[in-house]
Amino acid sequence: MRRAALTALTATALFWAATPAPSQPPTKAGQPPAVVSPEVRPDRTVIVRLHAPKAGDVALSGELGRKPMTKDDRGVWSVTVGPLEPDQYSYSFTVDGATVVDPRNTKLKIGRGSFVNLVEVPGNPAQDLRPVPHGTLHVHRYESKALGGKSRGLVVYTPPGYETATDRHYPVLYLLHGSGDDEHGWTDVGLAHRILDNLLADGKAVPMLVVMPDGHAAERSANTQAFEADLLGDIIPLVEKTYRVRPGAENRAIAGLSMGGGQSWVIGMGHTDLFAYVCPFSMGGGNAPAVLSKLDPAETNKRLKLLWIGCGRQDRLFGGSERLCEELKAKGIHHTWHPSEGAHTWMVWRKYLADVMPQLFKS
Amino acid sequence: MRRAALTALTATALFWAATPAPSQPPTKAGQPPAVVSPEVRPDRTVIVRLHAPKAGDVALSGELGRKPMTKDDRGVWSVTVGPLEPDQYSYSFTVDGATVVDPRNTKLKIGRGSFVNLVEVPGNPAQDLRPVPHGTLHVHRYESKALGGKSRGLVVYTPPGYETATDRHYPVLYLLHGSGDDEHGWTDVGLAHRILDNLLADGKAVPMLVVMPDGHAAERSANTQAFEADLLGDIIPLVEKTYRVRPGAENRAIAGLSMGGGQSWVIGMGHTDLFAYVCPFSMGGGNAPAVLSKLDPAETNKRLKLLWIGCGRQDRLFGGSERLCEELKAKGIHHTWHPSEGAHTWMVWRKYLADVMPQLFKS
Repeated sequence: MRRAALTALTATALFWAATPAPSQPPTKAGQPPAVVSPEVRPDRTVIVRLHAPKAGDVALSGELGRKPMTKDDRGVWSVTVGPLEPDQYSYSFTVDGATVVDPRNTKLKIGRGSFVNLVEVPGNPAQDLRPVPHGTLHVHRYESKALGGKSRGLVVYTPPGYETATDRHYPVLYLLHGSGDDEHGWTDVGLAHRILDNLLADGKAVPMLVVMPDGHAAERSANTQAFEADLLGDIIPLVEKTYRVRPGAENRAIAGLSMGGGQSWVIGMGHTDLFAYVCPFSMGGGNAPAVLSKLDPAETNKRLKLLWIGCGRQDRLFGGSERLCEELKAKGIHHTWHPSEGAHTWMVWRKYLADVMPQLFKS
Repeated sequence: MRRAALTALTATALFWAATPAPSQPPTKAGQPPAVVSPEVRPDRTVIVRLHAPKAGDVALSGELGRKPMTKDDRGVWSVTVGPLEPDQYSYSFTVDGATVVDPRNTKLKIGRGSFVNLVEVPGNPAQDLRPVPHGTLHVHRYESKALGGKSRGLVVYTPPGYETATDRHYPVLYLLHGSGDDEHGWTDVGLAHRILDNLLADGKAVPMLVVMPDGHAAERSANTQAFEADLLGDIIPLVEKTYRVRPGAENRAIAGLSMGGGQSWVIGMGHTDLFAYVCPFSMGGGNAPAVLSKLDPAETNKRLKLLWIGCGRQDRLFGGSERLCEELKAKGIHHTWHPSEGAHTWMVWRKYLADVMPQLFKS
């Protein structure tokens, strides 16, 4: 790799000896075979491969599916999956019982405490990388006053043209990740920036900022309250000071998945003075009875422009969202209940985001 | 992990059954032992560990050093290194001849075609994450006209206060990565944003933008020329349209490491009308004779405010930079030759960046 790139620089002759760095020795006879993985084929099948000549058992796991793999005479294990729906899928290998990532694939889903590979099967116009105008992702670091000075990350999407439309102000979606992720989850895995780029290019959504905070603010039972303090005390002020955003609840939405679904429910419904759009996806908990009991139906219906609750039927959390929507119905609180096919996966959440974004800030 | 975070949401009682997602089963008897890796200790030693009960031979490799590891009765291999200089180090494991990343460490250096782990030993005020005002990293995607519409990434650092100082304009450093990296290399591994945050907090540099493009524009021998076309035809116009930057060569610097050192030399010295500061680090090639032969010493000295060339004595590319500086001296072209200790590593390049940034845009 390094040798090839050094060669690339020599338009004519090298002025000095270009030798590979010690960490990148040249390929020698007896070294492992060249392995391509993953290989995405035009028929939407995917082949994954792993060189593991000494392993006794290798299998595929993750969103690509659970499948045994077979070894060839070079010691390369492989399996073909699909044809698959055009989407992005996580996967890893199980090698003699241990989880191993695909060393040939640098596209990674890095979560809290673990990482797996990602592979994309193109053909989904909602989330493919298309040659449309692109927004910008802004990566911030701040010390949270609400959390005693703790260093925190924050990702903000601004729509195409934001930097040059210096008189224009925008509404804001606060978008929260799940327990296994961090502030990069909604872009690295959720493709929120691509989804909104495509919706804007297709005229299906209004330009908005998307603010993606780190949802892990404190340990266990203290987390929702600590995150709420950080969001209301530090993040929203940072955003409203740093970016050209419109004030008022009608210009703020809060959505999230799993743990972030619970946070969007608790914080959004607890602050309808701040958020007129509340959209929990595959809600992963939340103090629903306490939040519900405090809601005045008439006042809530007056304030909220959208309460959108979605969950996949194959998600073990489905019953919780379903029961919550029954309670909301019994209390006469307007809402959209969106049961769908799917489990507790990013395939579901990317679809939900593409469904919900066009419903925000339309009025 | 997921179970813990779900529990975190139940401020009082759960409204519905919170069960872990299928991909995150609860720990069972017979599962692998809990492994902490890496462990950075107060005496600046680092312990790395890997659970690999069936492996016959496990060793540490990378910037942490090459060392054999030993197995305990639970099947956990470990080794202690250091005490180390406060810095960031890459590492991976060699398991029965195969390169394996540390699955417990989500801090990764993701390069082109491979990835390894990173571990940081704190105590270096030049690059530690300190509670100082932080700049923002802006991640762009654009279709390069110079490269036939190719989709390209670009990372831009703006200094603290950029967003609110709406009348202020800034100089720009174009900062180029090496052949094994991409546009995220100088931040993810090079910590350029932290280094500049710290220099600014200490009053040692002037506020500037840092533009970090993707240096891979075409295959092999066509790369430097293709990258130059992208930089001059697409990137600089994008930056000057999108950001509040000062025009003119005296407000532009170009620096880079290894392959990017060669690019900064070829492009910078070929365009002293555009760049008054040229700083190749551990130059990885470049068409030095052709570039040199075209330089008019008097004109070059008049235009350039800084030509800074650094290389580590343990770098196999050292001789090339040394000979180039002898040629420059013979031609009477003003320059700073900075031979230092160190090999072809990021430990050297982070130091060079911290050395060079205070010398930019001072006049």
